[in-house]
Amino acid sequence: MSELVRVAVDAMGGDYAPAEPVKGAVEALRENSGIRVILTGDKDAIARELEKYPDVPKDRLEVIPTTQVIETGEPPVKAIQGKKDSSLVVGLNLVHKGAADALVSSGSTGAVLVGGQAIAKKIRGIQRAPLAPLIPTEKGASLLIDCGANVDARPAHLVQFAVIGSIYMKSICGIENPRVGLVNIGAEEEKGNALCKETYPLLKARTDINFIGNVEARDIPSGAADVYVTEAFVGNVILKMYEGVAKTLLKAVKSGIKSTPVSSLGGLLIKPALKKTLTSFDISSYGGAPLLGLQGLVVKTHGSSKAKEIKNTILQCIQFKEEDVNGKIQEFLRKEKEEKAAGGQESAE
Amino acid sequence: MSELVRVAVDAMGGDYAPAEPVKGAVEALRENSGIRVILTGDKDAIARELEKYPDVPKDRLEVIPTTQVIETGEPPVKAIQGKKDSSLVVGLNLVHKGAADALVSSGSTGAVLVGGQAIAKKIRGIQRAPLAPLIPTEKGASLLIDCGANVDARPAHLVQFAVIGSIYMKSICGIENPRVGLVNIGAEEEKGNALCKETYPLLKARTDINFIGNVEARDIPSGAADVYVTEAFVGNVILKMYEGVAKTLLKAVKSGIKSTPVSSLGGLLIKPALKKTLTSFDISSYGGAPLLGLQGLVVKTHGSSKAKEIKNTILQCIQFKEEDVNGKIQEFLRKEKEEKAAGGQESAE
Repeated sequence: MSELVRVAVDAMGGDYAPAEPVKGAVEALRENSGIRVILTGDKDAIARELEKYPDVPKDRLEVIPTTQVIETGEPPVKAIQGKKDSSLVVGLNLVHKGAADALVSSGSTGAVLVGGQAIAKKIRGIQRAPLAPLIPTEKGASLLIDCGANVDARPAHLVQFAVIGSIYMKSICGIENPRVGLVNIGAEEEKGNALCKETYPLLKARTDINFIGNVEARDIPSGAADVYVTEAFVGNVILKMYEGVAKTLLKAVKSGIKSTPVSSLGGLLIKPALKKTLTSFDISSYGGAPLLGLQGLVVKTHGSSKAKEIKNTILQCIQFKEEDVNGKIQEFLRKEKEEKAAGGQESAE
Repeated sequence: MSELVRVAVDAMGGDYAPAEPVKGAVEALRENSGIRVILTGDKDAIARELEKYPDVPKDRLEVIPTTQVIETGEPPVKAIQGKKDSSLVVGLNLVHKGAADALVSSGSTGAVLVGGQAIAKKIRGIQRAPLAPLIPTEKGASLLIDCGANVDARPAHLVQFAVIGSIYMKSICGIENPRVGLVNIGAEEEKGNALCKETYPLLKARTDINFIGNVEARDIPSGAADVYVTEAFVGNVILKMYEGVAKTLLKAVKSGIKSTPVSSLGGLLIKPALKKTLTSFDISSYGGAPLLGLQGLVVKTHGSSKAKEIKNTILQCIQFKEEDVNGKIQEFLRKEKEEKAAGGQESAE
């Protein structure tokens, strides 16, 4: 690797800041020598955390002191506009100016989404920057695109999500010809709400994606598609149902196991094997959710992220850069523009 | 009880028809002497099933022979219009004519929804008839309204759902002052899509429901509200995510348990306790989903329903009649109309 990938890390974002973001950054630096980390946040607080790691490669670590912190409860737009010297806004500006290739933040989701689009800016031609987390399925992981803050999407937005999602899954997860499914309430082409009915033929007509048709929510966890295309409101509901049903069900399983002495003993015996299984199904183990279609990369990690998730997310940023995901997205936009121009010419003749 | 509650049962609907619908009907007749069942379907097939139960109270059982069956894959509107002598359409007509108080069907969801509204007809003033299943939560069961076929709802529809859902939960589940939550992607009032933003203040202004604000999908399984109000597309996604996540997760738990000899032994020990727990979390154990706001009652049971679910659903119809749910809905509509008229008068002054 000739050039270091520069990742800014919001050291003040998340429930365990600055301890876990700093630890995650240090571990990423130790694990991969192709990376340079820029921590944004309170100078003294970061220094205190860094003292714990005397072996950190200091030549690849920079700290940019900031004086403000955006809290989870703050209205996003106001926070982004008002707190110019917050760890998040300063980090986003590094991406905007090209001083960092990516920003990783466990801070307020709303602020990351709003700030990502307002400061890091969308790639020219991208109508909306979708938030696209990987979700666990029986077959591995699939991309759920969009779970962001911009609801009430139009069909053209969903088409862009399908293409961008396909590029991401191919480049980052190594899936050749990823299967794209439109989240709908029935399998047949004519099913669904107005948005789905208009989007379906547009997806079907594309030759640059592997559109497999409608997918019902019931089949999402089994891995019916590699890319689940949906509008942000529904995407958010899907993501949170994953979390909620899993949590409630596991609680029920645990209390069922503890209900009798015999089953309690059984519980002890299955514990190690079960723990391993459930880790593979833990939505937080899949790293951060990228906000795609930006000039650069902004990744939102869970508010409750520990060092491991933050480290994994930082390392994913290398792959994003090396695979030139944004270059591929730009290539798609260029072609789309050409097609539109050609289409316009035809109809003008 | 002075008068028998008359429940029509679509004997040809569902994966296990006519065996399970007939068995469910027989069991309901045995268990409750206040009920009269009318089976619609193939005369000979029903007769063959009934031979298995020589003790059935024949004086409270009627068979109406029909010659057609609506299959699951058929386009609903065409099926309802074309198959006038199907077990479903004949059953719906019994409700329409007042010859039955309710119809229970495990047949095609689409056909039941379309037929329910087209044949059994909505109560005058009801804008949409919502499908409202009970879903399992940590605190018991909550009502998810609407999961039906009419997507792209308007705010006024959601307000009616909230009131109807509250009446249902109070009358059928005995919950005083049921908590009504609007399914949204954030807790704050200003969050969400256009539909939620417009619906929130309308719900907040009502004095006849206990509106507790927005509820995120993550908190649905924990029982954050008794009535979850949402548009049908999102309701359908919630219902199917319940099913899908639970199925995939339990599969993962089972394969985790079987992964080592020690944990396999543990699995045997926890089996009985776990089975009990999981039954309480099985969405199909909550009986059928009523299509509310109709003149009469139409209940859709799962396609895979066995006799027990069908029996429970038939028995729920008694309570629906005895509690006069439709009378209470009509009372709400009467008041709503009066309020509107009064409001109109004021603005005319």
